[in-house]
Amino acid sequence: MNKDLILLGHGSGGKLSHQLLDDLIIPTLSGIPLAGQNDAAVVEHGGQRLAFTTDSYVVDPIFFPGGNIGSLAVNGTVNDLAMMGARPLFISAGLIVEEGFSRTELAGILASMRGAADAAGVRIVTGDTKVVPRGKADRIFINTSGIGAVEHDFAINGANARAGDVVIINGTIGDHGIAVMAEREGLDLRTAIRSDCAALNDLVAEIIAAGGDAVHVLRDPTRGGVATTLKEIALQSDKTITLREETLPLNGAVKGVCSILGLDPLYVANEGKLLAVVAPEAAERVLTRIKGHRLGRDAAIIGHVAEGGGRVQMETAVGGMRAVEMLAGEQLPRIC
Amino acid sequence: MNKDLILLGHGSGGKLSHQLLDDLIIPTLSGIPLAGQNDAAVVEHGGQRLAFTTDSYVVDPIFFPGGNIGSLAVNGTVNDLAMMGARPLFISAGLIVEEGFSRTELAGILASMRGAADAAGVRIVTGDTKVVPRGKADRIFINTSGIGAVEHDFAINGANARAGDVVIINGTIGDHGIAVMAEREGLDLRTAIRSDCAALNDLVAEIIAAGGDAVHVLRDPTRGGVATTLKEIALQSDKTITLREETLPLNGAVKGVCSILGLDPLYVANEGKLLAVVAPEAAERVLTRIKGHRLGRDAAIIGHVAEGGGRVQMETAVGGMRAVEMLAGEQLPRIC
Repeated sequence: MNKDLILLGHGSGGKLSHQLLDDLIIPTLSGIPLAGQNDAAVVEHGGQRLAFTTDSYVVDPIFFPGGNIGSLAVNGTVNDLAMMGARPLFISAGLIVEEGFSRTELAGILASMRGAADAAGVRIVTGDTKVVPRGKADRIFINTSGIGAVEHDFAINGANARAGDVVIINGTIGDHGIAVMAEREGLDLRTAIRSDCAALNDLVAEIIAAGGDAVHVLRDPTRGGVATTLKEIALQSDKTITLREETLPLNGAVKGVCSILGLDPLYVANEGKLLAVVAPEAAERVLTRIKGHRLGRDAAIIGHVAEGGGRVQMETAVGGMRAVEMLAGEQLPRIC
Repeated sequence: MNKDLILLGHGSGGKLSHQLLDDLIIPTLSGIPLAGQNDAAVVEHGGQRLAFTTDSYVVDPIFFPGGNIGSLAVNGTVNDLAMMGARPLFISAGLIVEEGFSRTELAGILASMRGAADAAGVRIVTGDTKVVPRGKADRIFINTSGIGAVEHDFAINGANARAGDVVIINGTIGDHGIAVMAEREGLDLRTAIRSDCAALNDLVAEIIAAGGDAVHVLRDPTRGGVATTLKEIALQSDKTITLREETLPLNGAVKGVCSILGLDPLYVANEGKLLAVVAPEAAERVLTRIKGHRLGRDAAIIGHVAEGGGRVQMETAVGGMRAVEMLAGEQLPRIC
């Protein structure tokens, strides 16, 4: 294998992505160490803290049950800001469109972007449109960047998980990835599985209101799924996270598709889920608040944090314990 | 012609781009009226004014004399912030990479991004990398978004040109577009024509220091060239701008290539040029300061502003007067 080539797995969000980031991209562009890698940068300006993030969306297909590339692009960036505990304020929209793309479809995507922005209470204030010749891009790619205001004065980031903390998720896992994959493959699961694509900033505001500085980490398990995201947190915080398999919320249809296709839902992307790592004394209070939110009805405590070096493990339903690693290779390309 | 299809010209920066923006994109995403369209949005937060901008770069070829897609992406976004009179602070980097792209070339591009950021005094603080399957993108596309601080308290924007103002450019026109086009077509002009790709924020700081609130408009004539940019200003300000052809700085080799290929340099993209529309009493002072800057040695006064409705015209070298319109269609696709 030619080691000079970029592979699909370098965009998976998993192990290869992290290698490329750690070996090349981050040292070259910014020098920010691993422990500082989060969903958004937090920068100081004029005595205030701003969160700043960017994501490009290349999902295939561009329309899927529960959303499209437009709503995904807005919600994804809103969520990256929210995961720093920031209040999302402003979004940019950078479109790369393939020559010959349908103006009607573009209009639908833009309307979804606006709808998602309005629902999340953010404004799309700046944009850019490029068109490339037919065959030089695949229909449409969208970059959204976002600015948020960090208004709390405690640390919420991936390096802040502490021994004794509990891990909460706000609902079922794997819905987005399986909905997109099913649409791509032409499986007729439309009624059973929809993407969970949603803006989480309102839910995050509730979590912070309920938990305050007992909220140590917030992160949305997108590319690479819950497994990869927890492994990132374990590494950044230098802790061990133990999951209990039987507590993981899972839609029956998602479970069925995963089992038929040999996919592990722990590695499947979510777009309306967050993992909250919370001090034990606040856990029930935060969980109750999450369950009271429309995006948290299926919330559950799925694990806990202990001392020890950057590991994630899962107590399986049959009582065993298995190590959980980052996604290796690329399970479902172009999932977001 | 199927009117539902997006054409290459919709990404030209010219007339079709404006139609798509005005008819569809802006009304849907934000509702900001034409008069408010500038290189960056200026938003208020916490009693401070921030500039926020985004651009995706799809230039072909990705390496060209005078720069590459990485330096172009950083300088382009720095310049969009600078054109609002803002001090650029933070940049994001969103990469879309085609499977099989060379890691060595990626490393070179990233190093150029860092070099350009360091030279401009901005920090790349956040990023994202997506990989799409072979054939679904063309090598690499880069989005950069940027945040800047607006620290002056006067208006610098495209709607602010006033009768009597003069139009200054900081040097020769068309260098970037012709350098990229020549590289793409395999013409051997390497020694004669290089892209002018450069960060203009330091020059803008000098202009504002010299001119203060006599600086009414700053804009960089990228896609669509000087002609399209001046037409935008004329429309936004509802004024007439008259150019004098013989005052337009033009590199002899660029002139030669344009004349052989039938291209009008007024419509060719620049990446290290700005147009400054300045009150007449400050014009000589600002021009002198620009000429004293390393990016302004060939600066010149090229036109003036008068009352009247959104027109641009040019006094030709032979004494005639011709109307100057926005770029129609697409002259040089994927120039940035």
